[in-house]
Amino acid sequence: MTDVVPWLETEQTPFLLIDQQRFLTNVERLQQRISALGCQLRPHLKTLRAVDAARYILPDLSSPATVSTLAEAEAFADAGYTDLLYAVGISANKLDRVRALLERGVQLHILLDSLTQAEAVISYGRQHDVVFSIFIEIDCDDHRGGLPPTSPLIGHIAQRLHRNGMTITGVMSHSGGSYSAKTTAEIVQAAEQECVAIRQAVAQIRQFGIACPILSVGSTPTAHFAEDLSQITEVRAGVYTTFDLVMYNLGVCALNDIAMSVVTTVIGHNAEKNWVLVDAGWMALSRDRGTASQHEDFGYGLVCDEGGVPLQHVCVTKVNQEHGVIALPDGRTVQEFPIGTQLRVLPNHACATAAMHQHYVVLTATGEREVWPRILGW
Amino acid sequence: MTDVVPWLETEQTPFLLIDQQRFLTNVERLQQRISALGCQLRPHLKTLRAVDAARYILPDLSSPATVSTLAEAEAFADAGYTDLLYAVGISANKLDRVRALLERGVQLHILLDSLTQAEAVISYGRQHDVVFSIFIEIDCDDHRGGLPPTSPLIGHIAQRLHRNGMTITGVMSHSGGSYSAKTTAEIVQAAEQECVAIRQAVAQIRQFGIACPILSVGSTPTAHFAEDLSQITEVRAGVYTTFDLVMYNLGVCALNDIAMSVVTTVIGHNAEKNWVLVDAGWMALSRDRGTASQHEDFGYGLVCDEGGVPLQHVCVTKVNQEHGVIALPDGRTVQEFPIGTQLRVLPNHACATAAMHQHYVVLTATGEREVWPRILGW
Repeated sequence: MTDVVPWLETEQTPFLLIDQQRFLTNVERLQQRISALGCQLRPHLKTLRAVDAARYILPDLSSPATVSTLAEAEAFADAGYTDLLYAVGISANKLDRVRALLERGVQLHILLDSLTQAEAVISYGRQHDVVFSIFIEIDCDDHRGGLPPTSPLIGHIAQRLHRNGMTITGVMSHSGGSYSAKTTAEIVQAAEQECVAIRQAVAQIRQFGIACPILSVGSTPTAHFAEDLSQITEVRAGVYTTFDLVMYNLGVCALNDIAMSVVTTVIGHNAEKNWVLVDAGWMALSRDRGTASQHEDFGYGLVCDEGGVPLQHVCVTKVNQEHGVIALPDGRTVQEFPIGTQLRVLPNHACATAAMHQHYVVLTATGEREVWPRILGW
Repeated sequence: MTDVVPWLETEQTPFLLIDQQRFLTNVERLQQRISALGCQLRPHLKTLRAVDAARYILPDLSSPATVSTLAEAEAFADAGYTDLLYAVGISANKLDRVRALLERGVQLHILLDSLTQAEAVISYGRQHDVVFSIFIEIDCDDHRGGLPPTSPLIGHIAQRLHRNGMTITGVMSHSGGSYSAKTTAEIVQAAEQECVAIRQAVAQIRQFGIACPILSVGSTPTAHFAEDLSQITEVRAGVYTTFDLVMYNLGVCALNDIAMSVVTTVIGHNAEKNWVLVDAGWMALSRDRGTASQHEDFGYGLVCDEGGVPLQHVCVTKVNQEHGVIALPDGRTVQEFPIGTQLRVLPNHACATAAMHQHYVVLTATGEREVWPRILGW
């Protein structure tokens, strides 16, 4: 990472640090990759959930973006963004807020995968004279929700919505299964599989003469390894802006690409056990143990020195609410980590760690300090 | 729980619900138990971290309380509380904020367990003409930080601080080991062990003629099972106000005592897999899997119906950021959970689940709606 700048040493720990130079490099890297494949990126803004971050990810306010909550949609709409996909299955109790955004001129697309949801949307639309823009969710890997790509229900739901005046804007899938890939070949295969699923799904809809212009696929691993995006119109990815240890283990990034860390202070030693205690527990790091099932388990995060250089095999091994325990590996002693020392912890899962902080401290490319507030709640 | 009140059905999900009647009963129960044992309760306010909750837990603003961050100390000080123990080992970089609270007239006690911390406190105190009130942390069960109760360092640190004008206010231990008890007999034993440790520790200090008036022990399990608190002056506990599934598994509470749940809406079905999808993922429930190693594993939480009645063996089995998957047990079908249905999920670990929400919706004893904001950050 960068050298230690003086203001970093006086910042109150624990806090979440974003290395802006790395962040910008990561943002640029995927943008270029997806453009080169002739496709559009629709970044998932859920990782940092910050308007200040979005301004770098999507300098053009009319660019497509993905959100995971209506609170995000509302905040990004306030910031001027106009093309948002709310990528969680819609429930009827949220349609008032969707309508309010549509009435403000925001193109907010909603997602569904059942006739029940379609009927609720039609009924609400009729009652309030609203045309909703709809994505149908497709299951490409048995991972979560969505309809199987060959299900006749896809066409049925699309027809039902279309005949009742709704707009079928797209089909989308999330290749969550790619997170458990053991090799990059498996990620390449997962990427191909999601594209195949989406092409099959859209065919189910177009046979009824419904345009359904957007074919949306995505996940950070598959976005970085997809080779053939023909017919696909857009790719979604979220965690690529900062990366994390799960992505490192998957071979999607290098350790030096990880742009997020939690800065913490050594508050104690247990020399007998060779433990270093720090002031970052699960409140600052999250409970996410995403690397536990991967080839290298980083506990609750990999420890770096004050300047951000990773210390091999030095991990936060145990957490309480506000305490982290670093059980040192053989060959390291607590004397190397004097009480008061600042350390940085790379996160297992950037989305989960970011969620524990209401704002992020940003080390800009020129060494200045910025603060990016996070959008909170639902 | 209580019957469904109309306003609950229109509240935007997911949200964290506090059942105030249960909360008040839990608060009263431990208060009475500890008073009957001739001891003082110093509640740990970190679970809900809300001034509105504290007003019920500690109606008297001069009552002792425990906090886990200086942000809490500052917020509770703003609310008028005057006796706060910051129960995380102090680091020198936090002393400016401690001093500011002392100068406002708040009796903020700090915690340490090393000569390095003691020297930092002495040096800062000398430089700024401040007398700090100090607790020495004792390790009663090899669980985290603190000095072994018979360590000569305890007396050495106390003397060093005392001679340099600091006040040795107390010794404290946290019986974190009680969370892994397999039987109530083991909790009783853990409670006894922490009291023994604290009595030994204070003897190390008093032999030098230092008063050290407070003997502080605690954890929610041991607070509920301690039998002999002689010499002990105060007991700390946090999660007892709402309880959770970890506490239920430990036999500390009944399911019907749990006063916290996350209210969620069914947003999808996967009939083939017998999965119900809900709009509460780890963002709302937390990643805490505290019951994973206990005799009954509740996944990411036990599901209750809309009125709060627990559904046996129905758990959130898998979570993504905003999606929860309820893999139904044999004999249950997705048709029992129509899309749009509201459900409540009891948390594994109340502290971790509360930490995911910036405010709590409170169902008062009379069926009214209150909102309690959470204190955020450090």
